[in-house]
Amino acid sequence: MSGARATGGFPVTLDRGAGVPLPVQLASALREAIDDATLRPGEAVPATRELARRLGIARGVVVAAYEQLIAEGYLAAARGRGTLVNPALGAGASAAAEPALTGPAEASQSGPDPDPGPDPDPDPTPGPGVSGVLAPGVPITDAVAGPAWRAAWREAAGRLGSVAPALGDPELRSEIAEHLRRMRATARSAADVLVTAGTRDGLGLLLTALGGTRGRELVVGVEDPGLPSLRGAAARYGARIVTLPADAKGLDTARLPDGVLDVVIVTPSHQYPLGGTLPLPRRRELLAWARRTGVIIVEDDFDSELRYTGSPLPTLAALDDPATGSVVLLGTFSRTVSPALSAGYLLAPAGLRGLIEPVRAELGGPVSSVVQAALARYLASGELRRHTARMLRRYAARRDEVSELLAGARGVRVRPMDGGLHAVLELTGGDAAARRARESQIRDAAAGLGVQALGGYWQQREPGAAITGLVIGMGGADDAEFRAALAELRAILDKG
Amino acid sequence: MSGARATGGFPVTLDRGAGVPLPVQLASALREAIDDATLRPGEAVPATRELARRLGIARGVVVAAYEQLIAEGYLAAARGRGTLVNPALGAGASAAAEPALTGPAEASQSGPDPDPGPDPDPDPTPGPGVSGVLAPGVPITDAVAGPAWRAAWREAAGRLGSVAPALGDPELRSEIAEHLRRMRATARSAADVLVTAGTRDGLGLLLTALGGTRGRELVVGVEDPGLPSLRGAAARYGARIVTLPADAKGLDTARLPDGVLDVVIVTPSHQYPLGGTLPLPRRRELLAWARRTGVIIVEDDFDSELRYTGSPLPTLAALDDPATGSVVLLGTFSRTVSPALSAGYLLAPAGLRGLIEPVRAELGGPVSSVVQAALARYLASGELRRHTARMLRRYAARRDEVSELLAGARGVRVRPMDGGLHAVLELTGGDAAARRARESQIRDAAAGLGVQALGGYWQQREPGAAITGLVIGMGGADDAEFRAALAELRAILDKG
Repeated sequence: MSGARATGGFPVTLDRGAGVPLPVQLASALREAIDDATLRPGEAVPATRELARRLGIARGVVVAAYEQLIAEGYLAAARGRGTLVNPALGAGASAAAEPALTGPAEASQSGPDPDPGPDPDPDPTPGPGVSGVLAPGVPITDAVAGPAWRAAWREAAGRLGSVAPALGDPELRSEIAEHLRRMRATARSAADVLVTAGTRDGLGLLLTALGGTRGRELVVGVEDPGLPSLRGAAARYGARIVTLPADAKGLDTARLPDGVLDVVIVTPSHQYPLGGTLPLPRRRELLAWARRTGVIIVEDDFDSELRYTGSPLPTLAALDDPATGSVVLLGTFSRTVSPALSAGYLLAPAGLRGLIEPVRAELGGPVSSVVQAALARYLASGELRRHTARMLRRYAARRDEVSELLAGARGVRVRPMDGGLHAVLELTGGDAAARRARESQIRDAAAGLGVQALGGYWQQREPGAAITGLVIGMGGADDAEFRAALAELRAILDKG
Repeated sequence: MSGARATGGFPVTLDRGAGVPLPVQLASALREAIDDATLRPGEAVPATRELARRLGIARGVVVAAYEQLIAEGYLAAARGRGTLVNPALGAGASAAAEPALTGPAEASQSGPDPDPGPDPDPDPTPGPGVSGVLAPGVPITDAVAGPAWRAAWREAAGRLGSVAPALGDPELRSEIAEHLRRMRATARSAADVLVTAGTRDGLGLLLTALGGTRGRELVVGVEDPGLPSLRGAAARYGARIVTLPADAKGLDTARLPDGVLDVVIVTPSHQYPLGGTLPLPRRRELLAWARRTGVIIVEDDFDSELRYTGSPLPTLAALDDPATGSVVLLGTFSRTVSPALSAGYLLAPAGLRGLIEPVRAELGGPVSSVVQAALARYLASGELRRHTARMLRRYAARRDEVSELLAGARGVRVRPMDGGLHAVLELTGGDAAARRARESQIRDAAAGLGVQALGGYWQQREPGAAITGLVIGMGGADDAEFRAALAELRAILDKG
């Protein structure tokens, strides 16, 4: 089956031979129709049964595509009215048009503060140096080194005469572009991809390039709460950090300050640590704001491939203009393969590449050509996709174990997580001061396990308002060790 | 044989069981005696035959040690007076105390110029991106991947669960310290070693760390002529570049400006591109100046292991104080193994480490743990030393081929080189303007071979004064390709 068919006013092209699953193809066609306003905000889409009949496909395919688009914010399920194109996508989408936010984090946010002053929470910010069975950010690595992996390295270790160009091994750049297309619904040319030593290296490259053109201190906005590693790296590169309030859905785009920032770092697919997904209206608002103000958006896409519910959401970069756009996506193989690789990528629109590429050429690429050749081969074998699918089942099983083993623990609720390598345990009961005290106490008692306090992810947490709790990693150990560590944590929770 | 013996006023301890060659042990003992003034400048050392008899060793051992120390500037051969401790080592050693400089480069140097203005020579500065059989900076790599290499990578590729700390794999840091001790006569603790992605990464780390403390634009002095890659990288990191005159012996330490610089980058062991070795009095003067002014010295030790004549010279870092010193040594495995590794190291005294380490911890180490584990194993096997010894024979043979194949070529003299991967072909005959025109013309005709013009290494070359010529690489091809490229170059030289 191939060719376009008119379907409720928009054409759909499905191709069973394309190697792309039908729900993905259908979701993509619907996204396009919404993006180019063939389908308008508030308009009803066909019922799943009807669309399946028209296209001659199983109803389950349509259900899966709709669910994905609801998760992304393209569609909305309206009680009694079937499925609609999200009304909040209308022009001038504002926070008011969105459903009320539900996360307790929301109330905690103050406006952007260009001078955050001393961190009100003296907790050590958890970084990649943290160790312990339950330390966040570490994936399960015991199943990577199979035959495809070993063959890739055997071949690569002998190729010492060919040195990868500073922008990266062409084969690897092309495999990463394919990875982004298949795993992140982001179709961009291999020329837009640069190989990096990881997310912080990519950020450093961008800031170095921008610093040279702006000729003054750069100002970088970061989500609060947020991942401390990029915040800390940006500061070390000499940038001034401004915190921007994030809530349970991610960055609050209605409260972005004009005229202050050069760069904003966001985690739209999986806000860290609370796990929210930035709704489509906010994505649009953010991009329009970036276009208007000339601010560059850094999309920290650190673990979006690892999503148990639905497909991974597409990137902010996918909505951006590949020529004149504002979004620099930073990706990493640290979560899908291993942090031992120290390899990732940067995706930038052509305009920004013109700024970044000469800097990279002069500073040199930091990633060994051997690593790049091995990774290119591993990706080309298709094994990363299979490995990721296997790991998703294991992470989902571990997430279930977290829920089961901690069910009924005193004053703890496991927050629902759609993906990623960590879980958030929210502390409940008592007043805010008591919860904060308990947060510190449990963090200290469970420090050997690598358990982190949520407080460490805030720069501006208002006492009494923000969610209080713990962050635990779900990789970094074999299954038995992981269970044993959970049992140990359960005992600490029940006592503390 | 072991134990101290008084020898002409100084004690010598030689130990046949130590695994360190006797000439190296003897040279080391003499160096110490000179450093602590047991032997004084101008004082005669025993005749080789006499010292050999006293110590009960072969005369050849003493000859080798004396030759090494003469090359380093510790000793001087005085006509009719035998061998002396170099009189130029006296207190307040000044350029005047040194023998007259012989290189034609000397006359070309203007004083340091804090604002070099536009490069008077528009030649593209050769960087690591240059390709061609005779491109400088590329080693012979066809013999690296032997059994020890393959075993190291096989083992390392499976270790995905252990991530190296940001400062580097402890085993690798310790192997690099051992490498520095054996290959560079620099005995320092493994704690002083940080793993880098290469020389430019190490420089970037240092400048980032310094930038954070100085809170203003850093000013970096570079040798002129000099290697463009670190000069360009420092500028990209936002530093202001000041050129410092270098002559045939290296940096002219008598003309260092006070109160201007934060950092000086030097190539004391093998000045690039002219190949000079910084004499000991200048080394001392440089270190004393750095101590007095607080300037940090970056020692770019890029290919010093590759020396055909005598042992490699010890580093500037070896003369520095390991606790409170001023020298940050940047080393690389690009020349001894392959640029495909993207791995090197930074050696810093404890005081500076305190500044650098927290920055590295927050920015993350860029080198894959797999690469680090493989390299540690390869170094531990002793294979790098054996490989280097084999490559030295091949480079020496290629240097001889350069001399033979280009002997008698029209208006060309092959400058004597003691080591390294490149040769300098000096243009002779005609006036300066004609030589400069010929330099450009040959460079253009031989561009496909990767041949570089000497002019590209200068920022401030005065027309008519500086040496004119070409730089060719001696690695980066198999032996037959290398010979064929030389024949092609010979034809171009005879025509142009």
